[in-house]
Amino acid sequence: MAKKPYFIGVDFGGTSIRAGVVDKDGTVVGFEKRKTQADLGTDVVFERLAVAIERAMSAAGVKPKQVGGIGIGVPGPVDQERGIVRVMVNVGKGWTNYPLADRLERRVGLPAWLENDVRVGALGEYHHGAGQGLSDMVAVFVGTGIGGGIILNGELRIGFRGAAGEVGHTVVNGSDGIIGATGQPGTVEGIAGRAGLERQIREAIAAGQKSVVPELMQSVGSGRLTSRVVVEALKQGDVPMQNALNNAQQALGRLAGNLMNVLDPEMIVFGGGVTERLGDKFVAPIRKIAQSHYVARSEARRIKIVPGALKDLAGVVGASVAARMYL
Amino acid sequence: MAKKPYFIGVDFGGTSIRAGVVDKDGTVVGFEKRKTQADLGTDVVFERLAVAIERAMSAAGVKPKQVGGIGIGVPGPVDQERGIVRVMVNVGKGWTNYPLADRLERRVGLPAWLENDVRVGALGEYHHGAGQGLSDMVAVFVGTGIGGGIILNGELRIGFRGAAGEVGHTVVNGSDGIIGATGQPGTVEGIAGRAGLERQIREAIAAGQKSVVPELMQSVGSGRLTSRVVVEALKQGDVPMQNALNNAQQALGRLAGNLMNVLDPEMIVFGGGVTERLGDKFVAPIRKIAQSHYVARSEARRIKIVPGALKDLAGVVGASVAARMYL
Repeated sequence: MAKKPYFIGVDFGGTSIRAGVVDKDGTVVGFEKRKTQADLGTDVVFERLAVAIERAMSAAGVKPKQVGGIGIGVPGPVDQERGIVRVMVNVGKGWTNYPLADRLERRVGLPAWLENDVRVGALGEYHHGAGQGLSDMVAVFVGTGIGGGIILNGELRIGFRGAAGEVGHTVVNGSDGIIGATGQPGTVEGIAGRAGLERQIREAIAAGQKSVVPELMQSVGSGRLTSRVVVEALKQGDVPMQNALNNAQQALGRLAGNLMNVLDPEMIVFGGGVTERLGDKFVAPIRKIAQSHYVARSEARRIKIVPGALKDLAGVVGASVAARMYL
Repeated sequence: MAKKPYFIGVDFGGTSIRAGVVDKDGTVVGFEKRKTQADLGTDVVFERLAVAIERAMSAAGVKPKQVGGIGIGVPGPVDQERGIVRVMVNVGKGWTNYPLADRLERRVGLPAWLENDVRVGALGEYHHGAGQGLSDMVAVFVGTGIGGGIILNGELRIGFRGAAGEVGHTVVNGSDGIIGATGQPGTVEGIAGRAGLERQIREAIAAGQKSVVPELMQSVGSGRLTSRVVVEALKQGDVPMQNALNNAQQALGRLAGNLMNVLDPEMIVFGGGVTERLGDKFVAPIRKIAQSHYVARSEARRIKIVPGALKDLAGVVGASVAARMYL
């Protein structure tokens, strides 16, 4: 039986829900973005998710019978066989072991497939973004956390225990004092993730440096070090922010160099809020550091390390790809 | 046409040449080990190699017509299509762009297949050693340099530019002063490779510590920090040697943790001279450090990080496997 022409991709985040109706070429033909409002509880958030999907179909002028199914990228581990969200720390405790696929199927009338958000982002960039036509690509998404998706010979690597792609926990600077989520010092996420950047700025301020970051976090970041805050602070020449960013780029460059030396993929794609806003201004120093670490020196300039092409639609497009592949 | 019953595997090193006749179960049925005598030049070394192969066949009571071909693991990059050694730094300049496969075929009358020595070691452990029956395995060989072989879904990963598996150039301690072969500080090889260990011991001696290592290098190491020297110094309670080994194990543990988080293979196998001599006494601290870095905490104890099972025959067996697969 031929596949239906459309699949829906959902990027289910702690702050917002994005839903898109996507055709087989990866074009988003209808889109809806809503706030998650995680604090209102699972029932309300679930309904917001369902309505986002329905509105995306309306916007596309597409009926459920033209849609093959729904792919959902969630910020946490999933049980794909049973369509269950294992845990979503950033969305709320009510989501632990939540049977999202079944409930969505009953509510919207379409089958659903769950996958980790970072992995669907990688699938999106690979099939319809920066990595189109390659056989191998590693995607690294830099945000609150730092995660990755590894595609080798066209296949997303899951790993023996389902943990492949956890690139943020790579130790690049083991004698660094910054402790990451695994409790170990010198991980990429500990240095370049949101908490790591914040800590470096707090320490600079405590040491007497001036910074506009705390102000900006209140005025434009809803109290958090969002990518908008990062970019605005850089624009204002904020020294602690610039230094923290330099450290982040160094850690990410070492990570990229390590990945090149271990896997030698054709391309490494960087994504996430700061990359989306700064593009190659963010990625160029990372690329330069990675090149300096690459063992095949004569080939170093041929390394492709680039910003993602799909920007904040990578998750939506990738989730639709996963649904198209697996449903 | 059915494959011939035997293939020959050769481990071609800067110090010694090992040749074995290997059956399809990975059993070495005839073996010869000779010194390489690299300083005598390519013609002499080539002839020593050919004679080693003939003697291994004699030892096995096997005739050339029973042999499907010869696999050769060489310490450097190769051009497999053309059967050419690109460069072998540790054997001599005369080997640059040496057409080893053709010459060997003319001399011995059997087709030959070249592969990097670390990769054939990984193939050996995967097919007939510690990794038998697994779908994924990473092998890390610790010696003068530190290299790796990555097998995913049963296939040896080569990489887009042929550089996959260069795990020794992984940066794990970027603020460390020790510079590795890529010119970057804090690489695993810079810390745990032979030159790194030697440097740490020299620095300890310069700082006033006592060490038996320089003496042992003369008496049992032919002037070099061989694995025998390492083990003998440890046995004598040599403090600089023990400290350098601890640093090496920490770096290797971080490398193993990084590999677990990125690739999540079922097993990581360690090989090389020191591992062969110390076995799990060398690997256990590495395993413990890797477990402390692994992101899936509840699964950390299930990580398999083990010493190789084939010891110094990994290269011979693996080279025969490569020949059996590709000739």
